[in-house]
Amino acid sequence: MRFLKKHKKVKTRFCAYLAESIDGRISLDSYTYPNWTSKEDWHFLQKELKKMDAVVCGRVTYEVAQERLDKRNTFVLTTKTSSIEKSGSVTFVNPKTVDLKNLFEGYKNVGIVGGARVYQEMLNKGMLDDLYVTIEPIVFGRGREAFFGGTENFRFTLESVKKMNKQGTVLLHYIRPNEN
Amino acid sequence: MRFLKKHKKVKTRFCAYLAESIDGRISLDSYTYPNWTSKEDWHFLQKELKKMDAVVCGRVTYEVAQERLDKRNTFVLTTKTSSIEKSGSVTFVNPKTVDLKNLFEGYKNVGIVGGARVYQEMLNKGMLDDLYVTIEPIVFGRGREAFFGGTENFRFTLESVKKMNKQGTVLLHYIRPNEN
Repeated sequence: MRFLKKHKKVKTRFCAYLAESIDGRISLDSYTYPNWTSKEDWHFLQKELKKMDAVVCGRVTYEVAQERLDKRNTFVLTTKTSSIEKSGSVTFVNPKTVDLKNLFEGYKNVGIVGGARVYQEMLNKGMLDDLYVTIEPIVFGRGREAFFGGTENFRFTLESVKKMNKQGTVLLHYIRPNEN
Repeated sequence: MRFLKKHKKVKTRFCAYLAESIDGRISLDSYTYPNWTSKEDWHFLQKELKKMDAVVCGRVTYEVAQERLDKRNTFVLTTKTSSIEKSGSVTFVNPKTVDLKNLFEGYKNVGIVGGARVYQEMLNKGMLDDLYVTIEPIVFGRGREAFFGGTENFRFTLESVKKMNKQGTVLLHYIRPNEN
């Protein structure tokens, strides 16, 4: 048996990307594409997504950005599907009935692109390693929070902080400390 | 009359201070003192407040930090007072019946220390010039948002960004562009 190489398991890296207002809102209205984020954030996100083997999003985010997401290996978390349904490169998954951990076996880099419940779900399940937060210099005082429906606190460490443009968009890169 | 000097009006500078989680929450529970903020944030706030001639807060914030606030010129915004009531160095003001602009005449530096409705109220009224946001490296997924009850967007410009400690607490200093 010594000629059989042990299959080396690829550790999947989950990277979440979110753009928020100073007061932590990721959208005013979930059903329209955000028009308040900077072009620097857009370019950053596109560049990052090129490195990803797959992206994860919620149903509403998928509907808003369907044209773009249909071209990727996209996993849509939705309770409207009983378990798993595939349509082209898009897989609809019910996180209540399917073990998400098995789903990404073999994927090296997975991008999480929201919304709030998906960020929270992936964080709860220990499937969020890198968190990239773009803070646009605006206060909304209303709208949808970046994470939502949580019941416990999650500590991060800051990897880097960067000013992205003249107006003062800031990019924060956080890492979840390894729990092992 | 030429010997009468014209009284030069002091322009009051309003500085808001807030500490939030990565997801923009300033508290999990309004009625207890936050125990998740860093000592660096605490020292920064204390140093800043020394420069202030007065502080503004809401009723709940006042009740939580009463011992400290009783020692300052404190203005407590509350609808439980019909107009203005003074008790020592603390003034209780109803923002619905009293014009806040007149209230701070002669004050040079006024600190706004929360909560969410007070930050929003002062911003709405054009009485928020500097915004200091400390972001602690933690995700709550629940709790009270930094600004609340807003109906319009307010743009800021970033003055500076600073890493405050090893864990990755970040201090962002924003300025409201002059509208004149």
